[in-house]
Amino acid sequence: MKHKWLIVMAALAYLGLCQTVHAVNMKKIAPTYWWAGMKNPELQILLYGDRIASADVSVSGQDVTLKEVVKQDNPNYLLLYLDLSEAKAQKFDILLKQGKKTETIPYELKSRVRKGEDIKGFTSEDVLYLIMPDRFANGNPDNDVIEGMLENKVDRTNAYARHGGDLKGIADHLDYIADLGVTAIWLNPTQENDMKEGSYHGYAITDYYQIDRRLGTNEEFKQLTERAHEAGLKVVMDMIFNHCGSENYLFKDMPSKDWFNFKGEYVPTSFKTASVMDIHASNYEKKIATDGWFASVMPDWNQRNRHVARYLIQNSIWWIEYAGINGIRQDTHPYADFDFMSQWCKEVLDEYPYFNIVGETWLNSNVLVSYWQKDSKLAAPKNSNLPTVMDFPLQALMNQAFDEETGDWGGGLYKLYDYQTQDLVYANPMNLLIFFDNHDTSRFTTNDDKARNLNRYKQAMTFLLTTRGIPQIYYGTEILMTGDKANGDGELRKDFPGGWTGDATNSFVREGRTDLQNEAFDFTRQLLNWRKGNEVIGKGTLKHYSINNGIYVYQREYNGKSAVVIMNGTDQQKELDLTPYKEILPKTQAVDVLGGKTVNLTGKLTLKERETLLICF
Amino acid sequence: MKHKWLIVMAALAYLGLCQTVHAVNMKKIAPTYWWAGMKNPELQILLYGDRIASADVSVSGQDVTLKEVVKQDNPNYLLLYLDLSEAKAQKFDILLKQGKKTETIPYELKSRVRKGEDIKGFTSEDVLYLIMPDRFANGNPDNDVIEGMLENKVDRTNAYARHGGDLKGIADHLDYIADLGVTAIWLNPTQENDMKEGSYHGYAITDYYQIDRRLGTNEEFKQLTERAHEAGLKVVMDMIFNHCGSENYLFKDMPSKDWFNFKGEYVPTSFKTASVMDIHASNYEKKIATDGWFASVMPDWNQRNRHVARYLIQNSIWWIEYAGINGIRQDTHPYADFDFMSQWCKEVLDEYPYFNIVGETWLNSNVLVSYWQKDSKLAAPKNSNLPTVMDFPLQALMNQAFDEETGDWGGGLYKLYDYQTQDLVYANPMNLLIFFDNHDTSRFTTNDDKARNLNRYKQAMTFLLTTRGIPQIYYGTEILMTGDKANGDGELRKDFPGGWTGDATNSFVREGRTDLQNEAFDFTRQLLNWRKGNEVIGKGTLKHYSINNGIYVYQREYNGKSAVVIMNGTDQQKELDLTPYKEILPKTQAVDVLGGKTVNLTGKLTLKERETLLICF
Repeated sequence: MKHKWLIVMAALAYLGLCQTVHAVNMKKIAPTYWWAGMKNPELQILLYGDRIASADVSVSGQDVTLKEVVKQDNPNYLLLYLDLSEAKAQKFDILLKQGKKTETIPYELKSRVRKGEDIKGFTSEDVLYLIMPDRFANGNPDNDVIEGMLENKVDRTNAYARHGGDLKGIADHLDYIADLGVTAIWLNPTQENDMKEGSYHGYAITDYYQIDRRLGTNEEFKQLTERAHEAGLKVVMDMIFNHCGSENYLFKDMPSKDWFNFKGEYVPTSFKTASVMDIHASNYEKKIATDGWFASVMPDWNQRNRHVARYLIQNSIWWIEYAGINGIRQDTHPYADFDFMSQWCKEVLDEYPYFNIVGETWLNSNVLVSYWQKDSKLAAPKNSNLPTVMDFPLQALMNQAFDEETGDWGGGLYKLYDYQTQDLVYANPMNLLIFFDNHDTSRFTTNDDKARNLNRYKQAMTFLLTTRGIPQIYYGTEILMTGDKANGDGELRKDFPGGWTGDATNSFVREGRTDLQNEAFDFTRQLLNWRKGNEVIGKGTLKHYSINNGIYVYQREYNGKSAVVIMNGTDQQKELDLTPYKEILPKTQAVDVLGGKTVNLTGKLTLKERETLLICF
Repeated sequence: MKHKWLIVMAALAYLGLCQTVHAVNMKKIAPTYWWAGMKNPELQILLYGDRIASADVSVSGQDVTLKEVVKQDNPNYLLLYLDLSEAKAQKFDILLKQGKKTETIPYELKSRVRKGEDIKGFTSEDVLYLIMPDRFANGNPDNDVIEGMLENKVDRTNAYARHGGDLKGIADHLDYIADLGVTAIWLNPTQENDMKEGSYHGYAITDYYQIDRRLGTNEEFKQLTERAHEAGLKVVMDMIFNHCGSENYLFKDMPSKDWFNFKGEYVPTSFKTASVMDIHASNYEKKIATDGWFASVMPDWNQRNRHVARYLIQNSIWWIEYAGINGIRQDTHPYADFDFMSQWCKEVLDEYPYFNIVGETWLNSNVLVSYWQKDSKLAAPKNSNLPTVMDFPLQALMNQAFDEETGDWGGGLYKLYDYQTQDLVYANPMNLLIFFDNHDTSRFTTNDDKARNLNRYKQAMTFLLTTRGIPQIYYGTEILMTGDKANGDGELRKDFPGGWTGDATNSFVREGRTDLQNEAFDFTRQLLNWRKGNEVIGKGTLKHYSINNGIYVYQREYNGKSAVVIMNGTDQQKELDLTPYKEILPKTQAVDVLGGKTVNLTGKLTLKERETLLICF
């Protein structure tokens, strides 16, 4: 009896929802509203409804010009292109006339709440904290299971199931995050992933305009961004333009086959995106790398289709305008069409000139990564317009450097020195996202043995937070969370202890952490807070020296202030003759930021095994 | 008695020599003559003689204008700068008036025997054969010991002593070299190295205008070049602009201290020339890398001194004009001043537009090597003007690739594929000198164990001779000569067996080689002669595929003709599904150049362990 009543209520609710948004036979309108006064005056409105292609379309708004109505092979779609050059904020109607019936779809152009120039992107003055929302904290157990969604259970014992983490869980811990000293959060994708299984990570979007209800609502996402800003944290949204989830209505009932590569049929990618830049690549390799699909459940968008391109570009702008986010992390950037991605970046930066976008440029050499950065000399005359790229080669090297003995010609820190000597290949080395791990790699602290080696951790963290680039830290790094990709991706995405009511330990608080964890946490917190607002690191030049007796020395300098890092990359006590370093050591003594001791800077300096000094002038 | 007579004869000969060239108190004139009609109308004449700086200088020639006379700190030098814009070939006099005495120095502007355009440089159609003259063959035992030179003995039991090889030894074996199928010889330096010891390699020049008399005369060098040309072999001369030998008169009695870096005092280089391109390098690192000396016996030229610059540039042009060589290999290219080296290359190419120069760019990444190639995007707006650079990163990878199992994502041939996917960094990948060893590295065949692995050798040689670039082979490679740098440089520079009268074996002939050596020799000879004149390899595009089941496949194509290499990089039999390769396999069968068998090109191809196919269309 109770069951029957619920079904009736649900049906009524569904009908009611439809009626408030659009005419009865409409299933989707994308976007559901827009803003007046955008720099790009064009608006695409995608209408999805039973056999609506046969309708005559008109719009009622003032200075709202319907310049193009495009049918697709599938009669359930219509694409409207409006010219809003002169349109003010207003409500108006879209009229669909089919025979004697006319459907009226109310639409709104909202007023912009801020200027595009007021949105500040993340920069090298920031440190990003990467969070997988399903795995950080469960602030609202009520949204763990959403009736009607395909994966409608949580199971924390299953690494590939949903665990219930959500936006409220993140919002509840903004103080923890801000206190740690990072200045931005990057969330793995939060848009709807209404897939049968394995979509807890968020990379199989089924509705680009909808936050996944198990994480929260669109409104909650917007509020989270506002609260983060109040806490001094920028927000970076993860987006995916290469592919969607196979349960996306645009795939299940696709407008036309050319919305997806290989006409909507699954052909796997080679994953060898070097082919895109490779001047020797065969036609076969070039096509399969970018047009091939990541997985059969991830249909690969054909961004060369102008309607797909407009749909994706508008969606990203909708989220920026709606929520006021500070940046986008674009998934699998080189797998998508170069020219489209370039156009997208250009349009976003035209609307929001201080915005930042970082592309996931997972390539194994600086040559290939650099190609994707805005103003790359190697890509010229083409230009990706992508301000920030991910320094995956440095990530790989950092995972070797701190486990090896450093020689003056190789090994250990030499690799970091050597790699950075090649930075001329980058159009903008300061706009490299640098990291030693993320949600797709082994954690830097692969296992408990490595966790116990705090010298290793401290050196890596010091390097990460003091060299050129925009550092990114993966959630849990500060408490030495471990994870080895050899054991599967789930291992890399463990729940943050204390994020769930009833967790045996709560690592968000001092008492819940071991002494070892607290030492790592305190070190990280000290360094992050020292870095925060410190223009020497955030904006300064990098000047470095080749490895000398196993020791790496470098300086950051800005407006006459400087910081010098001296790092012993060996397991032995070492002496450093300071003669070559006069140009960066202007005083005879200085205080080490990390240890607090006074360091004598004349003659020779003795460094303990794996000791690091950070001194300022 | 006989001894006394010899001394008198020698003294007379010496005086006679002086009188024919210059006035009595002159010790050196450089150059001793020049040519009329060079594109650059300026000529520097360096005069070295006791206290000649006080002389008034004039010249007697027609349209020969003495535009500048420059004194140095050292009164034994004068530098004359002549303007030869209008001067025809002629003999004239340089007059030095000191008080009432006038010294007359006869000088000559010769007629050019060929146009600059007629000198053809080496290209990717060539294969270079690198020879260390002291270690290849001793054609003239009479010049093994030259009385009066500082190292006046030979000792073949000592790896660091002179062994007696010479230009005649090379001339005597031009037929062997031409028959092998290479098309050019590159000789390690042949200019005078009148040093006390350890200069058998030639890199410590004591007179830039003189062939070392233990190798032969200037005239013999010229004749060797002419004979090589007749045999279809180009000649590449090794030059050194970074440093000279400490017994050079220009160092021992230096014109002024600023002719050498650090004012003629020995300060060692860091050898870290990455600092030159490193945007983060400290001032200290930048200076020490290029201004520091290779060794105390190798004074480091200061090429920023315009007189030094002119001296070196003219010397290289003198040798090209005199001997008609086809190319220069420039030693330690990045250790010298960038702007000077750029100017040098420009001037040489202005005089000889089809000439080629390869710089020894011993750097460990393609980013850094590419910087030094003419028209590098990374160096712009600077330009090295250096047409060819050495692909040291590929050299390092080749020494790993053929010893490892090849995976589809790493190891073995994957490294060669992966590296070449980054060729967009190079302004001109076809102008990369490619090699798997040279006189400074371990031989590819490090030891006898490796020598027995002919599959390894054949794959490496096939790759070297069929991928993009200008291949270089080190003498003795064709007979599997071994050498491990761990045992010292001498090990890399063993005498070619049979080059000395009385050698136990003579590897120049079939009977003197083992069966293993003959198999390597025959394979190399077959491949080299197939490559010779084959525009598909010499000029063609490279198109390659990512590793597929451990197999590397690539194509060269030119004017509708093509060659395809299919190389199994594993120790197992492998199958290759040919579906992806349709664009490069236009026929259903073809003949393997290497093995002669007919290969079926439909469906799947089976390759034996480490098998290589080379098929043409």
